[in-house]
This record gives sequence, C-alpha cells and structure tokens, in this order.
Amino acid sequence: MLIVQKYGGTSVGSLERIKNVARRIAKFKDEGHDLVVTVSAMAGETNRLVDLVYGLSDDPDPREYDQVVSTGEQVSIGLVAIALKEMGYDAISLTGWQVGMKTDSAHMKARILDVDTEKIKKYLKEGKIVIVAGFQGIDEEGNITTLGRGGSDTTAVALAAALKADLCEIYTDVDGVYTADPRIVPKARKLDKISYEEMLEMASLGAKVLQIRSVEFAMKYNVPLVVRSSLNFNPGTIITKEDKEMEKVLVSGVTYNKNEAKISIRRVPDRPGIAAKIFEPLKEANINVDMIIQNISKDGYTDLSFTVARNEMKKAVEIVKKVAEEIGAEGVEWDDTIAKVSIVGVGMRSHPGVAAIMFKTLADNNINIMMISTSEIKISCVIDEKYTELAVRVLHDAFNLDKEPEEGE
Amino acid sequence: MLIVQKYGGTSVGSLERIKNVARRIAKFKDEGHDLVVTVSAMAGETNRLVDLVYGLSDDPDPREYDQVVSTGEQVSIGLVAIALKEMGYDAISLTGWQVGMKTDSAHMKARILDVDTEKIKKYLKEGKIVIVAGFQGIDEEGNITTLGRGGSDTTAVALAAALKADLCEIYTDVDGVYTADPRIVPKARKLDKISYEEMLEMASLGAKVLQIRSVEFAMKYNVPLVVRSSLNFNPGTIITKEDKEMEKVLVSGVTYNKNEAKISIRRVPDRPGIAAKIFEPLKEANINVDMIIQNISKDGYTDLSFTVARNEMKKAVEIVKKVAEEIGAEGVEWDDTIAKVSIVGVGMRSHPGVAAIMFKTLADNNINIMMISTSEIKISCVIDEKYTELAVRVLHDAFNLDKEPEEGE
Repeated sequence: MLIVQKYGGTSVGSLERIKNVARRIAKFKDEGHDLVVTVSAMAGETNRLVDLVYGLSDDPDPREYDQVVSTGEQVSIGLVAIALKEMGYDAISLTGWQVGMKTDSAHMKARILDVDTEKIKKYLKEGKIVIVAGFQGIDEEGNITTLGRGGSDTTAVALAAALKADLCEIYTDVDGVYTADPRIVPKARKLDKISYEEMLEMASLGAKVLQIRSVEFAMKYNVPLVVRSSLNFNPGTIITKEDKEMEKVLVSGVTYNKNEAKISIRRVPDRPGIAAKIFEPLKEANINVDMIIQNISKDGYTDLSFTVARNEMKKAVEIVKKVAEEIGAEGVEWDDTIAKVSIVGVGMRSHPGVAAIMFKTLADNNINIMMISTSEIKISCVIDEKYTELAVRVLHDAFNLDKEPEEGE
Repeated sequence: MLIVQKYGGTSVGSLERIKNVARRIAKFKDEGHDLVVTVSAMAGETNRLVDLVYGLSDDPDPREYDQVVSTGEQVSIGLVAIALKEMGYDAISLTGWQVGMKTDSAHMKARILDVDTEKIKKYLKEGKIVIVAGFQGIDEEGNITTLGRGGSDTTAVALAAALKADLCEIYTDVDGVYTADPRIVPKARKLDKISYEEMLEMASLGAKVLQIRSVEFAMKYNVPLVVRSSLNFNPGTIITKEDKEMEKVLVSGVTYNKNEAKISIRRVPDRPGIAAKIFEPLKEANINVDMIIQNISKDGYTDLSFTVARNEMKKAVEIVKKVAEEIGAEGVEWDDTIAKVSIVGVGMRSHPGVAAIMFKTLADNNINIMMISTSEIKISCVIDEKYTELAVRVLHDAFNLDKEPEEGE
C-alpha cells in the first residue's frame, strides 16, 4: 500500500518524540508499505518564529513572514530523516518547493494548486521513505508560501490525492473522532467511521482534530482519511464517503462552541434590501457572521439576530448600532454568554423527528433555546453558556451515542 | 555604486541588532547605492540547529544536516527584510536556491560553482534592497547545500564577483585587520590596506576576521574587499591587489597560532620515498600537516619534524609511531606546548634581511627557535608556547608596526 502519514507538532516536539515517530514510520515500512510522511514544525517552534517576526513589525510583509515561518517544518523534516537514517532506513526530506507543492500567491493562507509527484515517485521507487514539509509551498514566482495554521493536514491530503495513495493517516494526540468531547461526556464513544460531510460540520463546530480545509480537500478528491493517535496503534476513525450504513444512524455526534456571541436588532423595518444593509458593513470590516435568524414580520417589523466570533462582538456591535439608527430599527442587544450546541448526522436526512427529540430533551432539562438553525445534516441551538455541558450530556444520552449503533437500527 | 555587504551572526544576534543593521543598510540606500546584503544566522542559532542534528545521530546524513542547518540564514534574511520594510524601504529576501547560488554536492562544505544574477538584477532595477542568505546554495539535483562555517563571507564575495560589484564590505565586530592581535599588543595599528596574499597568510595564521576561502575567491575574481565594524562608521581595512606602495613596507603584521603541536621522528633512514611513507597514512587519517622540516642527513640519517593541529596530535603520534618502527627510525617525540609566530609582508620579496631581523629579535629576548619555515611573504618560527605574547610584542616593535609606514621608506 502507498500510505501518506501526517504527524503534528506535538508528535515531533522533542528529539525523543522524533525518534518515536521514526520508529512508528519504520514499523509501517517493515510491513512492506510505501511511505510519504508529512510533518509539522516542532511544537512551539512556529510560535517562536512568529514572535520574532512580530517583534519587528505589527504588520509584517506576508512574503517575508512565510520565508521565516516555513523554516520550522524544514527543520523537522530533516530531523525525522536523520532519525530514520540512524535506524538504518533510507529516507529523504523534501521542502515544499523541492517537492513541487504549487500554491497561489496568497501568503500566510495560500491554497494548493498542484502537486508535482515525479520526484516523490522517483524516490519511492528507489525504496526511500519520503518526508515532506507540511504547511508550505511555492508560488509561480518561486516565493515560499505557507498554507496557514493547521495546513500540514491539507498538505498530507493533497499529497495523498496527487499520488492516488491508498490511505491518508493523520496522527494526532487523540484516538480519533468522538461522539462528543470526552472531557464533558466521559461516556463519549470513538466513532469507527464518519462521512466527510459530518466531519466538516463537526470540525467547524469545534471538534478540532482535523483542519477543515483538509477534509474539504479529501472529500473533493475522495481520499480515504484516517485520524488516529501517534501514541498507540488503535485503529482510529475513518473519514470517508457517506454509505448506507451511516445513514441508518440518526446522530453521529454532539458538539458545542463557546466562542460566539449573539447580536439582535429589534424592530427592523421589513423592507427589501434591509439584510444587505446590515451585513454589508460587517463583511467590509472582515467580521464573519455565523448563524442568522430572521423571523416573520409583524406590523411590517421584524427582529433579526445573528452570531459572530466572541472577540469580534464589540466591533460588530459598533457597526450594527450605526446601521440600526440609519434604517430606523428600535435598538441593538448583544450577549456574549451564549453557546451553540449542535447535533450532526447524515441520518437526519431520512429520519424525521430528530429536531423534535433535540428540542424536547433541552426543554425537559429546563434549557431555554434562544436561536435555532438547521442544515441538512446538522441542528444547532443557541443556549445560555452555563448550560453547555449539561446540554451536550443530555443530548448524548437522548441519542444513545454511547452505544455502538445496532445493525438495522 | 553597487555594494555587496555581509553581516555576521553577532550583528543580527537579536531583534534590536537586526534593527540596527537595517538602519545601517538604509543609510547606504539613502546615499544612492544599490545594495545586495548577505546575512549569517542569528548568533547561537546555527549551534542550536547543529545540536538538534547531533542529538539524533553522531554521523548525520550530510544532505539532511544541510536541510536543517540552512534554515538559520533563511530566518535572518526574512527578519532583516521585514525590519527594512517596517522602516519604509523596499526589500526582498532570497534563499540560496532562490538566488541561484549553484554549488557542488559536497554537503556541509560545498563550493560555489556559479551564481545566477538575473533575479537579483531584476530586483535591484525595481529599487529593492536584496537580502541574500549566506552560507548556503543548491546543487544540480535541487538539494540544499551549505558552504561550511564562515561560508557567508564567501557568499558575499561570490555575489560581488558575479554582479561585478564596486565593493564588497564584510561587517564584523572589529574595526579591520590589525598589525597584531590588539589584546596582546595594545599599540597594534589598524591597517588601511593589505594585499590578498598577505591577508591569506594572516587568516591562515589565526587573524580570524575573514574566512580564508572568501579571500581566495576575492583574489581570483579581483573583488575589492573591505573589512569593517558594524558598530561604527570607521573606514576599515581594504583588501586588494598588491601595489607599489605595499611593497615598500617590510612587514605588515605579526600573527601567532597556539593550536598546533610538534611531532619529531629521530634518525629517519634517509632513503627516497621515506617522506611519503610517513605522510601518506596521516593524509588517509584526514590529519592536516602544517609545517614540515627535514634537515640534511648525517651518516644516512635525518631528523624529521612537522606540526599538526593540537587536537589531532594524539591520533597523529599513534600513526607515526607505527611508521617509525616500520622504517627503522630511532623514535618519536611530541610537544603540544608550542606556538607558531609569523611575520607577513609582501615587502619581504624585495627586501633581504627581514628573516635576520626576526631571528635576532627573538634571540635578544632569549626566545629559542625550534623550527623555521618560510614562504615568499611569510616567515614562521615555532617557539615555546609560553613566550608567544612576548615574541609577538618584540617583533611588532622591531618592525615599527605601531607607526604609519612613511612615504618612500
């Protein structure tokens, strides 16, 4: 098998850990697999480099930022290759430009355009283990680019897609994707399998095991993805195309997000173009709006609520106050003590009544729902922040997530 | 003017120092010069990276060593460019491969073969200050190479040669090249000008202001070199072609070297091929031999002495003992409490009697000469180590090196 593996910064955070990673890689090589391995910078190293840059400028040149910060991965790939060679395995490290990881020129958040596979294939044919720097690439002009934080996951998936690898394994410090945060729900169960779509909803909601862009990429190119722990040999969670089996399950997981804040505009005149008037200036200020709720109007007025990232609430409120005055709304309210609790599952598509179970469960536990938003495979409720853990636990119970789904359920 | 400047690791050793270097570069830019600037890794950084590598392997793969260690300069060029941009100057950093610094594949000690000037010239034409990573290059296969310690000087000279720069300035923490080590001879005088040949003899003898290979390179391509301090705006020392003026000066400087040890073989049978028998095995063991003295033979036997680096003496003695037995010599003696004191000057070529003055001066001060070796522009004497400082001082006096050479002397 051709396997692409990715090890994060914690996995290569010290020389001892690098040796561990090398032993793990060697084990797979011994089993007869061809291996392409992506590694992140040693834990702490990227922060050190970023601090140097911002020590010189609050608004550093993005090209030079990438020039500096990309060295973190260059160091770790060299070290992993050295550790493997020391163990008697033939390995070679390749930076983003050496491998031909072509990106656009959007420094600090570049997107991968194309991956040259010629060099990697040549080295694989020679029996070498190929270690590729994550997080980085090269643009058309020969400038070094970086993919933004967490970009090493995307590097691994892009390599797997380009090489048509049999498997892309993302190693992290958890055993896989869980039905809920195990710190909140001790009974949370590791999922054996989850669909790309579900993973996307989980990731964006705070289950931070995988970089969201890497999942999009995997979905687009149909790369079989596995998230597993670098500390043991447990099988992890497979992230793959939706299949019949998955659809039988009502809900795959419960997630939450405490990093949002709610803003409401009272008595907005219900005229065409009003929503644009409100959200255009927010967009211009680069404020990301998540949920938007507008109820039917009464007497030509409506209430409009939305959520933004908590650290952008102040800025957003200032903008919205001005707009509210302009359009003749009654006033603006805001609240940063909220949380969003969501249930995710492709089974919702074919099983009606999932929302009703969620609302009843929250009501039975005296948890008031402030906002509701739904998608095909997700239902989110905004509630008072202090009930977050309780809500996650009772929902986990209500959908029996601690139990392995039964055949034909 | 097109000026190539090089700043060492101490000059960019902290963010504060990087800002200082940026201000200095900006000053030259303000004066209307075109600037290409080479920087070393931040002081301590190369050692940190080397330690990481040797923490994994006592004999690391040289290609991977270069992959890791070359990141030090990549960080510092990015930071210098950021500091310049922050001051409002247009700057761009280029790694060895981005600039097209082509080397052979001798990792850890690569030699520069060719420098692409196209990219640099394009950026200069755009008014940019071009910051180039010292110490590194790229081989034909696209592997990163390093030039070995001190290689940033060579990078600067190679750039100056390829760009046909008007000047190559090497910035360091001393004001220039002195007639002797100022810590030993407080009256030591900074030289305004010195020939490439003299500098080569001085450098190899321990006046460690300049990497010796960079001087060879400058001599070969006739690059006007200046060594000066990054801490002030003093003019420094010009290193250039020998001229009439220089030839009038008997001696330019006095240097010493305490890092050698002496080995003597007593009563070597004086047969053809004997020297080869002795020095071949040393060469095979990678031991560098410096001075070799063989006196005329008596009764078909001769004594043979030579010096090696002090930390290689033990290894050398072991080898030589074996050889001595094989060839039937009387025995081997060694001494690591010696020093080599040398006077250097192109004027020696045309002024007889310089050696005599040196020997008499040492004799007058009761300093015994153990070995003598001469070249066209250098006379070296091996003496007891404890007299080193005294010898340097009395020779400095004897040749009036504290006084500016008079016109027509």
